[in-house]
Amino acid sequence: MSSSEVNISRLLILAQKCNNFYLKGEKCSIQYPVFCLEGFVELNPAFRDYNERTEQLEKVLRNLRSEGLLPALKGWRDEYFEVKSEHRALLKMERAATPLFGVRKYGVDINGYVRHPTLGLCIWLQQRSNTKETWPGKWDNMVGGGLSVGLGIKETAIKEAAEEASIPFHLVKSLVSAGCVSFYFESRQGLFPNTEYVFDLELPVDFVPQNADGEVQAFELLPAKECMDRVFTSDFKTTSAPVVIDFLIRHGHITADDVVDFTQIVELLHVPLQSFYTYKAHLGQSQRQHQNLQGETKNYRCSSLQKSMENGHKRAT
Amino acid sequence: MSSSEVNISRLLILAQKCNNFYLKGEKCSIQYPVFCLEGFVELNPAFRDYNERTEQLEKVLRNLRSEGLLPALKGWRDEYFEVKSEHRALLKMERAATPLFGVRKYGVDINGYVRHPTLGLCIWLQQRSNTKETWPGKWDNMVGGGLSVGLGIKETAIKEAAEEASIPFHLVKSLVSAGCVSFYFESRQGLFPNTEYVFDLELPVDFVPQNADGEVQAFELLPAKECMDRVFTSDFKTTSAPVVIDFLIRHGHITADDVVDFTQIVELLHVPLQSFYTYKAHLGQSQRQHQNLQGETKNYRCSSLQKSMENGHKRAT
Repeated sequence: MSSSEVNISRLLILAQKCNNFYLKGEKCSIQYPVFCLEGFVELNPAFRDYNERTEQLEKVLRNLRSEGLLPALKGWRDEYFEVKSEHRALLKMERAATPLFGVRKYGVDINGYVRHPTLGLCIWLQQRSNTKETWPGKWDNMVGGGLSVGLGIKETAIKEAAEEASIPFHLVKSLVSAGCVSFYFESRQGLFPNTEYVFDLELPVDFVPQNADGEVQAFELLPAKECMDRVFTSDFKTTSAPVVIDFLIRHGHITADDVVDFTQIVELLHVPLQSFYTYKAHLGQSQRQHQNLQGETKNYRCSSLQKSMENGHKRAT
Repeated sequence: MSSSEVNISRLLILAQKCNNFYLKGEKCSIQYPVFCLEGFVELNPAFRDYNERTEQLEKVLRNLRSEGLLPALKGWRDEYFEVKSEHRALLKMERAATPLFGVRKYGVDINGYVRHPTLGLCIWLQQRSNTKETWPGKWDNMVGGGLSVGLGIKETAIKEAAEEASIPFHLVKSLVSAGCVSFYFESRQGLFPNTEYVFDLELPVDFVPQNADGEVQAFELLPAKECMDRVFTSDFKTTSAPVVIDFLIRHGHITADDVVDFTQIVELLHVPLQSFYTYKAHLGQSQRQHQNLQGETKNYRCSSLQKSMENGHKRAT
């Protein structure tokens, strides 16, 4: 990193961009015409259970999709995310619809890197296929994917490494879990309160990733500095930037001595989604008690749907 | 890490303990009898500048110290921290007094580690001298220290590495900047809104640290698992635990598949002190404007003193 940054670094600007919703603060607005914005959105409390909630909501979502008004639903992929509130599974929902409700999303990302004898630290990036529904043609981390129902975290990373980059088992077994980043982004598609579990994978200098599932159109190995430059361009998927920045911070390529707003940047890579959602859920709960509604287990209001939903994934417990 | 954690892990309990003040939420209370608690603490707005504010406050602090009522001031060390608000230096203050005002503190920590041929990842810990004013006799990271006026961050780490552990230059040049942790702890001494810049240093298997400044009474090399166990004991300095936990997360020894509340833990290692202090400062500012007080530059109220002060350190800009 250059040490010529003044006042506010372009890194901080990027970290802020990834948190354009988080930084709005408490103002919570949904701009989608199908939901009631006066106070809260509520699932019909008459729905008895997980299955009924899932079916009823899916019916509505499929109608909305056929009307073609919501850009998010154009990316429909028949892949379910489980929606939870405080560890309790409420329903499962088509993945493409989750940004409409601000459902927390979890993913995995692999930083594939090489310690090159002459170029130093180099990072593999993938270019997403032009046919992908989200961020087509954009540059992205070497491997990444959302967590779906039923798979563990490292398990998902290994699966994606095989599908997206044909990483063989003898290499992927060096995968190192390295933490997670969290941010809260908003786009035309909706809200992205994302947590990405990050893994590092050192690769031999002569290994070249090969896509196996048609979702990647190219791979490129870039020296750390050039990789950072790429991340700042509009050719890079905004919501993948936090993973690269975190990687370069953990490996000493972005340091507190060089970047004036280092602590702000680190903070924006780990925004308190957990506290945010838990607090909102509790707030929703106490409001429900206050208003004497029909009982805690049956009401999922705005604060639940838009603010305190989580998509689930299986974890070893 | 064991995968037998249920409901809430002992790691989360420890991360919460380091944030006992942060997790109190908005309730801001100072329990020290010398400050006015009705609304705000204000420095006399007649003080004209940095030097006058410094001298006047120091006079009061020295009196308080001689009265012996405040445990924090027993640790007086004639070492100054610069107190800033929004990048503006307000005054400098005896380091031991800063917890009484909730002044943000910055420090450096070095994780000294060894890749042992049979024991795997091992970590060097230091045992603090029994004569230290704070946390005497407790186990701590291999090297650590507060940032003082006039020194850079890596510069401070290198200086402390020499003083505390006699790390020679040919080894310390492998120091890798690896980010920072932030937490907000409260003890009898006061408030600790701390940011620690963390560095990793891989050491040869045969290197043994030697203390040079009398502040360390022992060093011990522990396998990762035993190091983690030590951190959970009352023999470990609470405010150093986040650095060890962060290290073990970054190096794949604490993973999301093994610890049920992984994302909460990572979040509590990076609490949003920056937003917290900036927000409070802006709040204070707008309140001042609203109340038509005597101008922005002269009033340092509760929100400034207790909530929005930062101690400064020189950074390359």
